[in-house]
Amino acid sequence: MGEAGLLGEFDVIARLTQVQPTRPDVRLGSGDDAALLDASGSHLLVATCDAQVDGVHFIRGVATYEEIGHKALAVNLSDIAAMGAEPRWALISLLIPSELKMSDLDQVYTGMRALAGRYSVALVGGNISFISGPFCIDMTLLGAVSPDRVLMRSGAQPGDLILVTGKLGAAAAGVLWSVSATDPALLALLSPETRERTRKAMVAPLPAVAEGRAIAESRTATAMIDVSDGLAQDLWHICQSSHVGAVLEAEWLPIDRPVHEVARVYGKDTLDLALYGGEDYVLLCTAKEDSVATLLEAIQDAGGVGRIIGRVVDPSQGMKLRLADGELRPLEPRGWDHLAHNIYR
Amino acid sequence: MGEAGLLGEFDVIARLTQVQPTRPDVRLGSGDDAALLDASGSHLLVATCDAQVDGVHFIRGVATYEEIGHKALAVNLSDIAAMGAEPRWALISLLIPSELKMSDLDQVYTGMRALAGRYSVALVGGNISFISGPFCIDMTLLGAVSPDRVLMRSGAQPGDLILVTGKLGAAAAGVLWSVSATDPALLALLSPETRERTRKAMVAPLPAVAEGRAIAESRTATAMIDVSDGLAQDLWHICQSSHVGAVLEAEWLPIDRPVHEVARVYGKDTLDLALYGGEDYVLLCTAKEDSVATLLEAIQDAGGVGRIIGRVVDPSQGMKLRLADGELRPLEPRGWDHLAHNIYR
Repeated sequence: MGEAGLLGEFDVIARLTQVQPTRPDVRLGSGDDAALLDASGSHLLVATCDAQVDGVHFIRGVATYEEIGHKALAVNLSDIAAMGAEPRWALISLLIPSELKMSDLDQVYTGMRALAGRYSVALVGGNISFISGPFCIDMTLLGAVSPDRVLMRSGAQPGDLILVTGKLGAAAAGVLWSVSATDPALLALLSPETRERTRKAMVAPLPAVAEGRAIAESRTATAMIDVSDGLAQDLWHICQSSHVGAVLEAEWLPIDRPVHEVARVYGKDTLDLALYGGEDYVLLCTAKEDSVATLLEAIQDAGGVGRIIGRVVDPSQGMKLRLADGELRPLEPRGWDHLAHNIYR
Repeated sequence: MGEAGLLGEFDVIARLTQVQPTRPDVRLGSGDDAALLDASGSHLLVATCDAQVDGVHFIRGVATYEEIGHKALAVNLSDIAAMGAEPRWALISLLIPSELKMSDLDQVYTGMRALAGRYSVALVGGNISFISGPFCIDMTLLGAVSPDRVLMRSGAQPGDLILVTGKLGAAAAGVLWSVSATDPALLALLSPETRERTRKAMVAPLPAVAEGRAIAESRTATAMIDVSDGLAQDLWHICQSSHVGAVLEAEWLPIDRPVHEVARVYGKDTLDLALYGGEDYVLLCTAKEDSVATLLEAIQDAGGVGRIIGRVVDPSQGMKLRLADGELRPLEPRGWDHLAHNIYR
């Protein structure tokens, strides 16, 4: 197997696009100047893009190439899910360093195609370029949503309850032992199950696509966002957009079991991992109290684990965290900042 | 002015999205998980993406930051134009090295916004990430086209004439003196006008958006592509997709005047620059002989310079170039390969 850089641009494209997941509404996929897509009908087009950069969002060796491809699509699916939308079409832009092997790229596409197939996403185009630098995958994902179903960050109102669709902290726990603090003596104290579960949460998150659609269809939520930067940071985005405050209940946060084990071994605060760790890719939404039962049922039917974690309050109260003993602490709007941080640091 | 890396991700996004060109069909632009766009109606959605990488597609110093921003959008506009479509919405993904200044990014956006405004393109979203490597701008551009106007690479038939919408070779001439062979003694032989005209063609191409729309509206073309990789390479794409051959007339190629001067000074073949240089961003199309007059008029009305440069032939004849003396030479399907080349080499 040769290096990708030794094959021509068109050879690489031809090979990667040989078997492309498609959909009936794709009139023309890869192979021309642009893709042709049937977006007619009463739905709004939903568009998002997100990049994965070697050394910032993934590390080769910790993540397999298949997982890198999976995650590149997963993070974009999560943004589409957070609008209550249905994902449809993806465009993939690869920046390839000369040492990358064609077989590595094949694996990236294997991971991407498997996840695309699961959600009926068509890979309809893209671009390949050489880079004297890290391997990067940038993706634009397009979806569709009915205008009366769309969920933005801006609809939360004081009195609404705050919910998440799944567990928190596992990805941050994975970063902790696999990237930030790889002391072999501490590593040996973690069970293989804990390691693999938190590594998998970090490198191959499962986006809450079904949950997002179910929440939108239930018409019970008032605002929604996905937890990518970290619960506190993303809740702050809702607070900013909706002009509200929020109080989270520390005791109600659904923290993934292995997070406790990792936090204990590494002397970290479990709550810190759950609040500020990021990359959970669960959905964070708000809803009126009288529609929460319906909302929780919708999440459960979609395969998620819905949990009430706090309440929207008046904007003058800002963001707070209530501890088990009743103490109210300010909740800082911090999390993962992709410009300020780099997982190698 | 601080470095972009010293500002937080959200500060940089807030600053860059302060003044965003928009359109009435943008229901929600930057600032949520995804953009919401009204793509309803009978048009097909057209989607393309292209990346610009420092050291591969541009060199800081040769191109200003404003020109780098301009070009990132221009190359995508060219792909939309090549489908006969109207450009509408852009998503921009920036990969930012830590040394890049916020004022540099402002300039990139100034260049991008100016070109976006010219074609009523809305900047509706994007992504910013840190990179330990070269500055990269990846863009996805979405447009729309009526299904009965769309122009693909696959409709050319033997007997059709081959046309371009503008002059060839200037960008390749710019690369020659500014990047590949910067001998000061040779440089001094070029007039300042030749240098600036060829540099500008290389760093700030003007995409043939109006020409593409006019050609589509005239319903006279049978196939179309934009000349980005090089005339010979892009003609080969039409030949492959349409299962035809082609004969180009060397004498008919509209070669930009300064290209002759650069070729003479550097001892290069003018034809080589026009056929294999690439990045001309003119449109290459085919049409039946009896509709060529209408087609040429449409191009001229749109501000372009239409020229007949050859004829589509039977696939068994392959691609050929007829020289002034009547000699028929094989025309190699080569041009700019972004994986095999790197303008620093």
